[in-house]
Amino acid sequence: MKETLIVIGGTAAGLSAASKAKKLNPELTVTVFEQSGYVSYGACGLPYFVGDLIKEPEDLIAVSAEELRTKRQISTFIHHRVTNINRKEKTVTVEDLEQQRRSVHAYDKLVIATGAVPIRPDIPGVDADGVYYLRTVEDGIRLKKQAAGRWQTAVIVGGGFIGLEVAEELTRAGTDVYLYEKLDRLLPFLDPEFSREVKERLQEHGVQVHLNADIDAILTEAGKVCGVSLVTGEKQQADFVVMSIGVLPASGLARQAGIETGLKGGIIVDDTMQTSDTSIWACGDCVLTRHLITGEPVYIPLGTTANKQGKIAGENIAGKGSVFPGVLGSMVTKIFGLTIAATGLTMAQALQAGYDAASSVITKSDRASYYPGGQPNTICLIVDRQSGRLLGAQGIGSDSVAGRINVLATAITAKMTVSRISELDLVYAPPLAPVYDPILIAASQAEKKVEGN
Amino acid sequence: MKETLIVIGGTAAGLSAASKAKKLNPELTVTVFEQSGYVSYGACGLPYFVGDLIKEPEDLIAVSAEELRTKRQISTFIHHRVTNINRKEKTVTVEDLEQQRRSVHAYDKLVIATGAVPIRPDIPGVDADGVYYLRTVEDGIRLKKQAAGRWQTAVIVGGGFIGLEVAEELTRAGTDVYLYEKLDRLLPFLDPEFSREVKERLQEHGVQVHLNADIDAILTEAGKVCGVSLVTGEKQQADFVVMSIGVLPASGLARQAGIETGLKGGIIVDDTMQTSDTSIWACGDCVLTRHLITGEPVYIPLGTTANKQGKIAGENIAGKGSVFPGVLGSMVTKIFGLTIAATGLTMAQALQAGYDAASSVITKSDRASYYPGGQPNTICLIVDRQSGRLLGAQGIGSDSVAGRINVLATAITAKMTVSRISELDLVYAPPLAPVYDPILIAASQAEKKVEGN
Repeated sequence: MKETLIVIGGTAAGLSAASKAKKLNPELTVTVFEQSGYVSYGACGLPYFVGDLIKEPEDLIAVSAEELRTKRQISTFIHHRVTNINRKEKTVTVEDLEQQRRSVHAYDKLVIATGAVPIRPDIPGVDADGVYYLRTVEDGIRLKKQAAGRWQTAVIVGGGFIGLEVAEELTRAGTDVYLYEKLDRLLPFLDPEFSREVKERLQEHGVQVHLNADIDAILTEAGKVCGVSLVTGEKQQADFVVMSIGVLPASGLARQAGIETGLKGGIIVDDTMQTSDTSIWACGDCVLTRHLITGEPVYIPLGTTANKQGKIAGENIAGKGSVFPGVLGSMVTKIFGLTIAATGLTMAQALQAGYDAASSVITKSDRASYYPGGQPNTICLIVDRQSGRLLGAQGIGSDSVAGRINVLATAITAKMTVSRISELDLVYAPPLAPVYDPILIAASQAEKKVEGN
Repeated sequence: MKETLIVIGGTAAGLSAASKAKKLNPELTVTVFEQSGYVSYGACGLPYFVGDLIKEPEDLIAVSAEELRTKRQISTFIHHRVTNINRKEKTVTVEDLEQQRRSVHAYDKLVIATGAVPIRPDIPGVDADGVYYLRTVEDGIRLKKQAAGRWQTAVIVGGGFIGLEVAEELTRAGTDVYLYEKLDRLLPFLDPEFSREVKERLQEHGVQVHLNADIDAILTEAGKVCGVSLVTGEKQQADFVVMSIGVLPASGLARQAGIETGLKGGIIVDDTMQTSDTSIWACGDCVLTRHLITGEPVYIPLGTTANKQGKIAGENIAGKGSVFPGVLGSMVTKIFGLTIAATGLTMAQALQAGYDAASSVITKSDRASYYPGGQPNTICLIVDRQSGRLLGAQGIGSDSVAGRINVLATAITAKMTVSRISELDLVYAPPLAPVYDPILIAASQAEKKVEGN
C-alpha cells in the first residue's frame, strides 16, 4: 500500500523533507500545505528585496509550487493553512484561505515545518497600519511598497541581524533610519568591542542608533503610525516602524495536538528529527536542536539548519536512519560592507554552561602588510582554560571573516584545542592572507589564557 | 656561561628561530649571517614588487638588520656568506662579501636556514645577460629594472605559481608575455579542469600560453638574450627570460659538513627541527618535512611552513620541547583575479601513497543564487574510498576559495570523513555564501564515491 506523507510548511525545512523523502521513496504520496502565497523562498534574502538589490519576489524563489508538482511529483498547495492535527485519526484539517473551504486529509507520516513567528511586543499601537515585520514574502512586498519612492523616516526596533540588515537596505532605499535597541549594545551576542564597531559603521552611513532605548508605545494618528515613544518619555516621528526583536517557534499547532514542546515553546525532537509522536517529524525554525558543544537543547533558528534538518527528516521518513549532529549556531551578516560572523558559544554562554572560559581578541590585517588594500580582521576566541578547547569564535572585518569563522567552526566540531589550531597549515599569498593568518595569531594569543601556560 | 647561537640565513625561518630563541632565553648571544643584502623580506611579495604594486624594496622588509640589532639584540650581518661549518670545532667560516674578509665564529648551537635556490636548466644561454630568477630582493630589483618603462617581450619558463604571478605582473608592467610550460598543463599539481581555467584567464589578459613546450636553448646576441628556441625547432624572440621551473633545497653547506640529507637534497630533521647533529637545527626551504597525511618526508617549500619551523627550532634551542606537526602543503595564489588554492594530497599523490582514492568536482556560486555578483567556485575533493576520509582539496574561483580550502585543511588535520564535512555548521548570508556552502555540496558529492555508498 502506498504511504502518504503530509508536510506542513513549504519553505526550507518542509520542502527539504518533502523532496528528500520523495526522492528516496518515489512510491510515497507527498503533499505540502503552505499558508503563505509562496513556497521555497529564501527568507534571508528579504532585506535585500526590500532594498531593491533583488528586484522581484520571484527572484527569491528556488522552485515554484507548479514545478514541485510537475518536476518532483509533490502536490503543493499555497494559501492552505493547517488548522488542526488529529493524531489519533492521523488526519490534518486544512483551510483553503482563498476559497475559504475546509478539508480533512489522512496521513501515514507527517512533517511539521511551521517555522517561526516574529515576536510582537505587548505595547499600544502594535497593530497599527505602518507596523511591519519581515518574515514572509508578503511581509517583504508590503515593506518594499511602503519604503519605495518617497523620502520617509523609519524606526527599526531591535538591533539583531535582521534589524541591521533592514537598516542598511532602507537607507539604501532613501529612508532616514532610526534604530532602537533595548539592550546596551547592538548584536548583544557579540563581544562589546564588535558591537561598537558595528554601531560606528551604521552611524557613518547615516543610521541614527539608540541603545538602552526601550520603546513603550507606537504612536498613531487615525490608526496609522506616526512615531514611537520611549519609556524615558522621548518621542520620535516616523512614517513606519519595522519590528525585529526576534522570533519564536510557530509551534501552536503541534502543542495543540499534544506534541511535546520545551524551551521557548520549541518542538522537542530526537536526533532523527522525530517528535514525541513516532509518526510525526518536525524540523526547521519550529524545533529545538542540540548544541554541538554543550549537548543541551537550544533554539537557534537559521536557514542552514532548517535545510539540513529537513533533509534528515526526509531521509528518516524514507527509512534511511540518518542523524542530525546538532548545531554550533554559525552565522554571518554584512552591514555596510562590514562582515560580522560568529560560531559556537559566546563568553556568557560558556560561563553559563559551566566552563572555566576566557576570551581573547586580536586585530590583524587580512593581507600581507606590504600588499595594498588590506583590511583589519578582529577575531575573538572563547577558550576553555582547563582543556584548551575552543568553545566559540566571533569575527568582524572584511568578507574573508566568513571563511575564517568557518575554519574555527570546523575546529570546534573536531574538538580542537587552541594550541592545535595555532599549528594549522593554512594558505598564504600576499593578496589574500598574511603569512600568519589572523586565525593562527588569534589561537596563539588564546593559548596564553589556557591553564598552565 | 653564555651560550652562542649562530643562524645561517636571515629570512623567514632563520629570523623566526633567532627571534624566538632570544626572546625565550635573553642570555643567549645570537648572531645571524645573511648572504644577500636584505633580511626579513617577504619573498612571496616579489612578483608584486616587480609589477610595481609594491613600490620600494624596503616595503617588503618586516624588520631591518639595524632593528634586529637594536630592538631584538640579535647581531645581524648582511652580505655575509657562511662558507663552511666545522662540526668538530663547532665553528663556521664567514665571508664578508663587501669587505672580502674571512672570519671564523664559534657556536654552541647552530641553525641552518639557507633556503632554496631556483633550478637552473642545463641548456645553452642560461648564463646570458637577460636571464632572470626571482628569489631574492636583488633578483626582484634587477627584474623590475629590466621590465620598467619600455614595451618589451618576455619569455617565462615554467607554469607554476611563481611563473603565473610573474606573468600577471609583467603584463601589468606593459610587457608582452610568452609563457612556456614543459608539461601538458599549467599548475600540474591541480585537477586538469582547473589548469584549463587558469590558462583561459591568462589568455584573456593577453598572455601567450604554450604547453608541452620544451625550451632547449636561450638564444643570445653578443651575450645578451634575444629569444628562446624549443625542441620542436620553433623560436620566439624575447628581450628577456624569467626562469621559474622550481626550486631545490640550498643544502650544499649542510651536506658538505656531513649533515644527513634526503629527497631532493633536503636536510633531514626530526620533529623538533634538529638535524643529525644534535647541536644543529635546520628549518625552512632547505629541509624535508613530514606530510601530515602520509607521515612521509616531503619537500614543499612555503613561507608559512618556514616561519612555523623557525619558531619551533627557536623554542627548542631555548629548551622548550616543541614539536612541528608536519604539513599539508596548503597554498593559494591569485592570477588576474582568479584565486586558486590547494591543500593535502593530489589525486596522483594519494594513489601513489597507496590510498584507494577517488576525486569529485563541483561548481557552485559563492553567494545565494538570487544575490547579485555571485561568482562560481569549483572545488575538487580527493577522498579515501575505504575510510571516507578527505585526503586533499583544490579550489578555484573568487577570493572566498582561500577560506574554503582552509576549512578543508582543518578538516583534513582533524581526519574528518567527507560525510562529517557535509554536516558542518557553516555560516550563511546571501551576500557571502549560499545556504549550502560549496564545501558542503562538494563533500556530499564526494560521499557518493565512498565504498558502500
